[in-house]
Amino acid sequence: MDNFPAPTRRQLLTAIGKTAGVAALYQAMTALGHAAESQFDGPPNLQGAKKGASVVVLGAGLAGMLAAYELRKAGYKVTILEYQARAGGRNWSLRGGDKYTELGGATQNVAFAPGNYLNPGPWRIPHHHRTLLHYCKAFGVALEPFVQFNHNAYVHSTDAFGGKPVRYKAAAADFEGNVAELLAKSINTKALDDRLTPADRDRMLTALKGWGMLDDDLVYKVGLRSSSHRGFERPPGGGVNGAPIPSKDLHGLPDLLDPQVWSSMSFFMGHEMATTMFQPVGGMDMIGKGFQKQVKDLITHNAKVTKIAQDANGVTVSWQDVVKGTASETKADYCVCTIPLGVLNQIDTQLSAPMKSAIAAVPYSGQVKIGLEMKRRFWEEDEAIYGGISFTNQEIGLVSYPNNAFFTDKPAVLLGAFARDVGAYHLAGMTPEERIETALAQGSVIHPQYRKEYLSGASVAWSRVPWTLGCCARWTEESRKQHYQTLVAMDGRVVLAGEHASYIGCWMEGALLSSIDAITRLHKRALEA
Amino acid sequence: MDNFPAPTRRQLLTAIGKTAGVAALYQAMTALGHAAESQFDGPPNLQGAKKGASVVVLGAGLAGMLAAYELRKAGYKVTILEYQARAGGRNWSLRGGDKYTELGGATQNVAFAPGNYLNPGPWRIPHHHRTLLHYCKAFGVALEPFVQFNHNAYVHSTDAFGGKPVRYKAAAADFEGNVAELLAKSINTKALDDRLTPADRDRMLTALKGWGMLDDDLVYKVGLRSSSHRGFERPPGGGVNGAPIPSKDLHGLPDLLDPQVWSSMSFFMGHEMATTMFQPVGGMDMIGKGFQKQVKDLITHNAKVTKIAQDANGVTVSWQDVVKGTASETKADYCVCTIPLGVLNQIDTQLSAPMKSAIAAVPYSGQVKIGLEMKRRFWEEDEAIYGGISFTNQEIGLVSYPNNAFFTDKPAVLLGAFARDVGAYHLAGMTPEERIETALAQGSVIHPQYRKEYLSGASVAWSRVPWTLGCCARWTEESRKQHYQTLVAMDGRVVLAGEHASYIGCWMEGALLSSIDAITRLHKRALEA
Repeated sequence: MDNFPAPTRRQLLTAIGKTAGVAALYQAMTALGHAAESQFDGPPNLQGAKKGASVVVLGAGLAGMLAAYELRKAGYKVTILEYQARAGGRNWSLRGGDKYTELGGATQNVAFAPGNYLNPGPWRIPHHHRTLLHYCKAFGVALEPFVQFNHNAYVHSTDAFGGKPVRYKAAAADFEGNVAELLAKSINTKALDDRLTPADRDRMLTALKGWGMLDDDLVYKVGLRSSSHRGFERPPGGGVNGAPIPSKDLHGLPDLLDPQVWSSMSFFMGHEMATTMFQPVGGMDMIGKGFQKQVKDLITHNAKVTKIAQDANGVTVSWQDVVKGTASETKADYCVCTIPLGVLNQIDTQLSAPMKSAIAAVPYSGQVKIGLEMKRRFWEEDEAIYGGISFTNQEIGLVSYPNNAFFTDKPAVLLGAFARDVGAYHLAGMTPEERIETALAQGSVIHPQYRKEYLSGASVAWSRVPWTLGCCARWTEESRKQHYQTLVAMDGRVVLAGEHASYIGCWMEGALLSSIDAITRLHKRALEA
Repeated sequence: MDNFPAPTRRQLLTAIGKTAGVAALYQAMTALGHAAESQFDGPPNLQGAKKGASVVVLGAGLAGMLAAYELRKAGYKVTILEYQARAGGRNWSLRGGDKYTELGGATQNVAFAPGNYLNPGPWRIPHHHRTLLHYCKAFGVALEPFVQFNHNAYVHSTDAFGGKPVRYKAAAADFEGNVAELLAKSINTKALDDRLTPADRDRMLTALKGWGMLDDDLVYKVGLRSSSHRGFERPPGGGVNGAPIPSKDLHGLPDLLDPQVWSSMSFFMGHEMATTMFQPVGGMDMIGKGFQKQVKDLITHNAKVTKIAQDANGVTVSWQDVVKGTASETKADYCVCTIPLGVLNQIDTQLSAPMKSAIAAVPYSGQVKIGLEMKRRFWEEDEAIYGGISFTNQEIGLVSYPNNAFFTDKPAVLLGAFARDVGAYHLAGMTPEERIETALAQGSVIHPQYRKEYLSGASVAWSRVPWTLGCCARWTEESRKQHYQTLVAMDGRVVLAGEHASYIGCWMEGALLSSIDAITRLHKRALEA
């Protein structure tokens, strides 16, 4: 166990149960919100490791480094083989001075000012990703709030509001107002008398009025009441002209039914997306660096795995040093393999046929992220947007604002695109320069200041990242049924770990929970051997 | 103008208009969200002040200090008289070592650990309070995010959910799901055919499904879909047991119609309450201290104003030094009076009869805030609540969690009560010890860890604060009509400023905007004299 004093949920409930009895325990569980917040229940218990038992870990991403950290602590002899010169894997930040060459050969020299960065991979941490939060604390990685949900950011659709961006708060308030008014009308015309008791009908009308900012006639209309949610034409002030002026009109229902509106509202209620969220102080790669500090001495870099062989006696991993050009073998009793499936699928492995089928069955998504450095924080200074996300139905997907260094005068980096699906496919087909141009063109629709303020940019198209060949595993309900349990099961002396071996795909937490589960089972197997 | 490079909104739009023509200007205004975000339009323009013209400012709160700062910069001779030994007024933080004696004589010796504090007055800053944000930047006051809206905090009502706290996200998701399902049903039974076009009906059903997490039958029910908003019985994880388990049941409609649910949802959409919000790093009084640094040399402390006289030649303020017991007079050409109305009403003033009526007409609210220092951050460690607010219909009103020093192991201070109206009246009638006991008893219903973790507490009942006699001005629509313009108008050589002279009552922004308006008019009057 590392030096982390907070009791786990289970420890806490056990302690309460022991000292105060069942009634107090029940009360505590109730207060703890009934449902579990996370599958994390503290670091893995790997007691009793056989002396000299060895594990080779493939990949120094978070899953691999966590496996190495915990296995070594338990007494295993551990080594990590990592293809890149850098540890951290998809936990990655691009900074000024960085050089990045993608598949296809295009090279970008990042020109951001010192302290600025693009997080091409993970960029935010939900409050319930407790494995990650635990190890960030244990490894001294400082976290700060990631704003995520900003009522004053924009919703933009080329199909609604005349193609102009509108404030989230105004769109959401008007959507809620319309929904409330329509439901109130239905109730008052007795359309729901079979569904609601008379008492609930009255209470529902009160609720709709208070939630949807309806007036006494249960209508949502222009006035101070709707403005107090959607924003004012002139907000309240001080002195002689202090009286507020309501917003002059409301958005119309056809516009409010644009998918960008309800999908944004739904997005911010999502389990992984809900407040509070965090980011590491100084860039996402601070987490990778924090993990690296713990296992630095175990990592062999520039090691390209070419073969994974196994027999009754152990595992033999063949690899090339991509800098020196030399070939080597590493032998161990067990192997934790965190290599992304698309890459692993191309490696010669002595894995079972079902496992090979599972590895081949899961395609990877190809998100594209683009960072745009701007001369000044015009979104803060001109538009009062501090952090958070503006969504658009253009291919860039969104514009996200930096969640640190608020109010400062130096250049800052916007996330100018987080493209998925077709948009990502288009952007990945472009040169880095064309991607930037696209992000500037589409972003200018939301922020006309873009062209004037732009300094430099960087992009990562994950389908062109040489060491992953994609962003993350894209399971379907069908492929889960057919292959998931095979993929996560030990295959001889080899066990797979990573976000692809979890139900929290694309998130660091999935990689870590998968890793804990994998090494716990590896350990159990080793004890039985 | 102070050294603040960001252009104001008006300057920006003017610049865009000049350089790029009207079309670009319109586009920019559109992108800027049409409606104004604030009445602030940069520091006041006080050019041309007559040499030697003098102003006495009464009160070294934010309104008074801003008036003094800008008037001196413009060339006026300024002096500030302040009753307290401290500057900042209601911008105030109580820290370990502080001693506070309220009306009635009860004295509290605050025992919080170093770095911990209770902000008895203002405690959060909306993103559109641009006057305050401007001067914080100009005066070097560092700000950090104030989380405010936390999906994982609680909603608690003694009348719903069996009296148990429930997660905001679960209550809100279930409320939205029920509203969506009922409205979808109304649409499908043609109850709204007179209100919605066939096209809008279809689009509304799609929207309700996506926003309210309805299933394909347009029903809100137990399953992974509703759980992805409300939370899971077992959330997604990694490895063999990675599959999520949906929450076992949903909250019922009668519980969801409790006012605590919809009023919480409505609260977080409120103009002043919406994300993003900020707080000063280190406590709210960092703002008062930032202002004080600018005008320190102008302030006479311990000065109790006893009379405000005026005639054609100037203003004479009589005051006592409450430490030395001496009586003095200060003469000036003009007076900016920021004394809270309840106190001002008891001072002998040569103000007009209508102004005196106005001063007497506005009662003050009597909020009570209670800070509770806990041994550890159990709300973070046990309950995954990082910042934000849990609301309750108990008299404490809410529990709010610290928005700084997340994940640390030291004692931390909860805002254990923000009581209003009847609750505040009751709490103000108690001894400080009884208030703490009430906060512990009511807070324990939400957090059973309270009693075990409690270290010390402090409370401020604003109706008992000797230098304000209340928290802030409580205007009604009627009193606004009758008295507001009188109150903010210059009365001879005296002008009032403060949150009471604004439409943003109880907020620092109201005090500052009022102050800018007051000194702008004072300056205009001085130029005409």
